[in-house]
Amino acid sequence: MSAQVICIGNEIMLGHIANTNAQFISNKLASIGIKTSKHLDIPDNPEVIISSIREVLNESEIVITSGGLGPTVDDITLECIQKALNKKLIFNKKISERIKAHFKRRKIKMPANNLRQALLPEGAIPIDNNIGTAPGLIIPVENKVLIAFPGVPFELYPMFEETALVYLKKKFSLGQIIKSRVIKITGLAESRVNEIIEDILQIAGDVQMGIYPHPEEIHVKITVTEKNEIAADLIINKIQKKVESRLKNYIFGYDNDELEEIVGKYLLRAKKTLAIAESCTGGLLANRITDIPGSSSYFKLGIVSYSNESKNNLLNIPMDTIKKYGSVSKQVAALMAKNVRDLTSTDYGIGISGIAGPGGATNKKPTGLVYIALSTKAKTICKEFRFIGTRNLIKYKSTQAALNMLRLWLPSALS
Amino acid sequence: MSAQVICIGNEIMLGHIANTNAQFISNKLASIGIKTSKHLDIPDNPEVIISSIREVLNESEIVITSGGLGPTVDDITLECIQKALNKKLIFNKKISERIKAHFKRRKIKMPANNLRQALLPEGAIPIDNNIGTAPGLIIPVENKVLIAFPGVPFELYPMFEETALVYLKKKFSLGQIIKSRVIKITGLAESRVNEIIEDILQIAGDVQMGIYPHPEEIHVKITVTEKNEIAADLIINKIQKKVESRLKNYIFGYDNDELEEIVGKYLLRAKKTLAIAESCTGGLLANRITDIPGSSSYFKLGIVSYSNESKNNLLNIPMDTIKKYGSVSKQVAALMAKNVRDLTSTDYGIGISGIAGPGGATNKKPTGLVYIALSTKAKTICKEFRFIGTRNLIKYKSTQAALNMLRLWLPSALS
Repeated sequence: MSAQVICIGNEIMLGHIANTNAQFISNKLASIGIKTSKHLDIPDNPEVIISSIREVLNESEIVITSGGLGPTVDDITLECIQKALNKKLIFNKKISERIKAHFKRRKIKMPANNLRQALLPEGAIPIDNNIGTAPGLIIPVENKVLIAFPGVPFELYPMFEETALVYLKKKFSLGQIIKSRVIKITGLAESRVNEIIEDILQIAGDVQMGIYPHPEEIHVKITVTEKNEIAADLIINKIQKKVESRLKNYIFGYDNDELEEIVGKYLLRAKKTLAIAESCTGGLLANRITDIPGSSSYFKLGIVSYSNESKNNLLNIPMDTIKKYGSVSKQVAALMAKNVRDLTSTDYGIGISGIAGPGGATNKKPTGLVYIALSTKAKTICKEFRFIGTRNLIKYKSTQAALNMLRLWLPSALS
Repeated sequence: MSAQVICIGNEIMLGHIANTNAQFISNKLASIGIKTSKHLDIPDNPEVIISSIREVLNESEIVITSGGLGPTVDDITLECIQKALNKKLIFNKKISERIKAHFKRRKIKMPANNLRQALLPEGAIPIDNNIGTAPGLIIPVENKVLIAFPGVPFELYPMFEETALVYLKKKFSLGQIIKSRVIKITGLAESRVNEIIEDILQIAGDVQMGIYPHPEEIHVKITVTEKNEIAADLIINKIQKKVESRLKNYIFGYDNDELEEIVGKYLLRAKKTLAIAESCTGGLLANRITDIPGSSSYFKLGIVSYSNESKNNLLNIPMDTIKKYGSVSKQVAALMAKNVRDLTSTDYGIGISGIAGPGGATNKKPTGLVYIALSTKAKTICKEFRFIGTRNLIKYKSTQAALNMLRLWLPSALS
């Protein structure tokens, strides 16, 4: 039993928009145990639409389409469905009333074209659209089903969840769910993670395992198909424990956890405060920290010292030190961390200085060289990193490493 | 002549990620006049990968795959391509050296698995990957071509643009191009933009027009299919002039222009410098400004004053003023702008104070209330904004408004 998703629209084929509908639909289907075997994006071309619907309906029990149900001339999906399934179009009075009411409510004169949307293929069950005018359609085809949605994501999302998902669960759900857990790792390369857990990755049976790289972050994903949440959790937890026993402290979180959130929770729990002075990351570290609601409880000050003068004036770093070692140096990063902590008497201070590129590199100090320092009342440590990538990537990777240094420091503060 | 894009990965089929690679690839192909006739997303299943490659290669001249080229056991695309095309795998010494150098540069021990990535199908032209280890591949197949990329977007993007696009342009480009121009507007609502240029949007013929809303930014897009750049530009420029004559100074840029870049160019040209003090935006404004290479020429200092103490200590804002008006007030934002400018003697100072939510709101000061001040030697102005959205959206919209205030101020400084 499988589903396929067909997304129809020239704007997808031209790359003007990303296909987020297919992602949404597959994700929701997985939550009720239905696997998506294919996504197909095709242009607003009647022959292609008709042949794709026929082909896909041949291969899978569930076909879901998005796009082309609107009132304009380039909305041809309804017509194509009718032809592909060889069904008559029948005028639906209830839908026409809804469309008229929609325009009345918005005090806009209804274009005559809109009533086309009230013509439904024989046997179709309409799905109400509470945001736009185009209804969705559930069309049973023998023991299979074709479900059609308008392409606007914020119209599709509620329609899918409230109607189609309920219908599919009742009719096709196998008493099975697909559940995933993501284990999030930082401080190790993808290939190193792979090496450490290679045997676990090769678990046979219905468990799918995958490793996905992100900037200075690796995701290990466990996916199982089981009869219910409890059975799924049982298997996932067992594998998770194995992974944990190998990767230990390199694991910083799970599923939707973000490093800045985890660090924030630690700081909040330990009642510790933080100030940062950043140079090459240019405010990105402060920005990530303050993306977390309630961060004002622990985050007190950020300084983006983008000039030697500001490092000297505000952070009291002697010009001699900057001249002797350079602004990108262990010495300067350490002083940034220490002095910003002193400025507002916080428990922790972070200092970052590096070369994000593309300009500013020298033979001895290449693009991607970054010094990150962490200062506490007891001591100040500083680490050297060499990151690869664009300016934005180097900025981001530096903030990942800085947050991770703080994370690794914090649990000891908690104990 | 057409192209098809196959994206391979269980994480796509489970809806864990959106397929942004297909969008990127189609968009770039359109820019050299190559139409994408289909996107196909499929799971990490060897039979499906092999049969899809064969089928698609049958239908189209250009097949582009993404995903499954990494060093881990679930990366099986290379093997499947080899089988689908019936080609031998040959060890590529140059690639193996590059992979070794990648690890050496990062001072990390190379896992043996990584050398699998140096095995290439016979006749394949490798595409260098300057960020990760997996090379891309251009594989000519009679008069057609299969091009394979790793699935990580920030690796694929530069590889595609620098190598594959150049190759395809030379080998397949038709006497036609699809060209779009985006006109970027800020400071007006979508419906207002629509009203002002409604008649221009209804231009008939081969011109496609669209309005797309973004946070505190509206894009008007003109798309034409023409025989060459000159013919396309002729039509686009004519429509663009009409739009410009209506929307004037609300237009801040075109195509890939970003507000922070435009403002940076103005500052650079006028040889003016900037310092900022931000509260509710938490470093996002500094981060956006420093995303621009060379921004250190004009951006001198950012202060993220996330506590009243730091507003008082570092920015010399009297505690009495904070107590009397509140930290979210016209008075405090104005002092932030003025005092941060004084600290490093820059030409401009920006101050932002507001409530990003979800906490911190009161009856009189709701979430989304933001004060933005701009200070010059001559005077300091402050504006009140009321933004709607999540914490992140309010942060972002505030930075848009701040950058726009500076933009509107700057041309007069230039004249």
